[in-house]
Amino acid sequence: MDKDALNFDPHVSVDCVILGFDGDSLQVLLSRRGNEVPEEQYNNLKLPGRLLHTDEDLDEAALDIITSVTGKRHPLVKQFRAYGSPSRTSNPKDVLWLENAIKQKIGRIVTISYLSLMRITNRTPHRKDAETQASYPDKAWYPVQDLPQLAFDHNLIIQDTLQELYRMAGQQPQMLFEMMPAKFTAAQLRRLHEQVSGKKIDVRNFAKLVMNKPYILPLNEWEQNVSHRAARFYRFKP
Amino acid sequence: MDKDALNFDPHVSVDCVILGFDGDSLQVLLSRRGNEVPEEQYNNLKLPGRLLHTDEDLDEAALDIITSVTGKRHPLVKQFRAYGSPSRTSNPKDVLWLENAIKQKIGRIVTISYLSLMRITNRTPHRKDAETQASYPDKAWYPVQDLPQLAFDHNLIIQDTLQELYRMAGQQPQMLFEMMPAKFTAAQLRRLHEQVSGKKIDVRNFAKLVMNKPYILPLNEWEQNVSHRAARFYRFKP
Repeated sequence: MDKDALNFDPHVSVDCVILGFDGDSLQVLLSRRGNEVPEEQYNNLKLPGRLLHTDEDLDEAALDIITSVTGKRHPLVKQFRAYGSPSRTSNPKDVLWLENAIKQKIGRIVTISYLSLMRITNRTPHRKDAETQASYPDKAWYPVQDLPQLAFDHNLIIQDTLQELYRMAGQQPQMLFEMMPAKFTAAQLRRLHEQVSGKKIDVRNFAKLVMNKPYILPLNEWEQNVSHRAARFYRFKP
Repeated sequence: MDKDALNFDPHVSVDCVILGFDGDSLQVLLSRRGNEVPEEQYNNLKLPGRLLHTDEDLDEAALDIITSVTGKRHPLVKQFRAYGSPSRTSNPKDVLWLENAIKQKIGRIVTISYLSLMRITNRTPHRKDAETQASYPDKAWYPVQDLPQLAFDHNLIIQDTLQELYRMAGQQPQMLFEMMPAKFTAAQLRRLHEQVSGKKIDVRNFAKLVMNKPYILPLNEWEQNVSHRAARFYRFKP
């Protein structure tokens, strides 16, 4: 394939921003390229994603990626935005990595990004613990507040997605509850809001706000065995 | 280029849904392929758009398309959605047309759609009148309520865009005023709402609604030289 043809027909990929909340920390699921090549050679963490397969629609590709990495059978899958800047492949590290992976020359890549939201529980795959960290896992959850440099423009995609999620949550509050535990404290909900918005939220104001929302129901249950004052649990009513 | 390579790297295009309102009718700007080939051979009306150029970002392509067809220097340009179903090129008429145009075999096309909104005035290019209709114009405004079969999935893209615009207008009322005349009657605003939503709106309820919105200001001006009772003019206050 000559250079002109490559430029004319960019590769098309689908990349998925899978956000999860474990009750304390907002995390994004990242995948790591195999470690055959020393990692200094490229930014080896990235969003789960791949080139579009033949005869596959964009939504199908996203669903396939998200179900295969999360194990969820019916995940929330929402197209977010297409990224097509020619500078996406300006970093030779990223190009080297992908060319190694797909054994093909890379010109440009237009990627369609998708958003998925889930709660992180004890049964969620790829939770980081001492063992998996040591064993260099191919996928793991990372706190969005402290991300390393990722491949391509994936830091930008995550940042844009969080901004859009913050905007959407103002209009469709149920979005954030996709990530909340079935019962939760006001402090947990506040921490999620803080991490989505990137802003500190006043504790008292937030507690008042929570109590005024018709879709947040107080339960007759309180935290157990905590050193601080036991907090009340709430649940979301769609 | 062999078939596999074509399948692996779909073409990438940008298509623009440019909506305009002339005070009475909500219209979309469509372009028509040259008439060298009899039009029975393909659906020859389509959204303004083209394949992505080398070294061009998606937003740049959209801005270029929209400015060139509307003549507006600073149009509203908003990425809407990517469409990538393999069935987009299932109609041989569409494929024949594009292959004729770009002198290249077509496999799949992933298109990124954009939305632009404008008011249609007497100075707006491509307004349909007796003269241009006769002369088979290469671009013209068409009422969204009465569109013919367009190329590819362009009818679907317009339908999805109107739905999304309706949703957005609920949250960001200023969107619709991009299309309204600087001063307008309640009936004009109602007609636009009806055509965006595809639903009939009750005249009295709508009039009350208009009067209760802080961003819609009544003017001390009324219609002149009308056979019905002269309606009051309003303006939008951002």
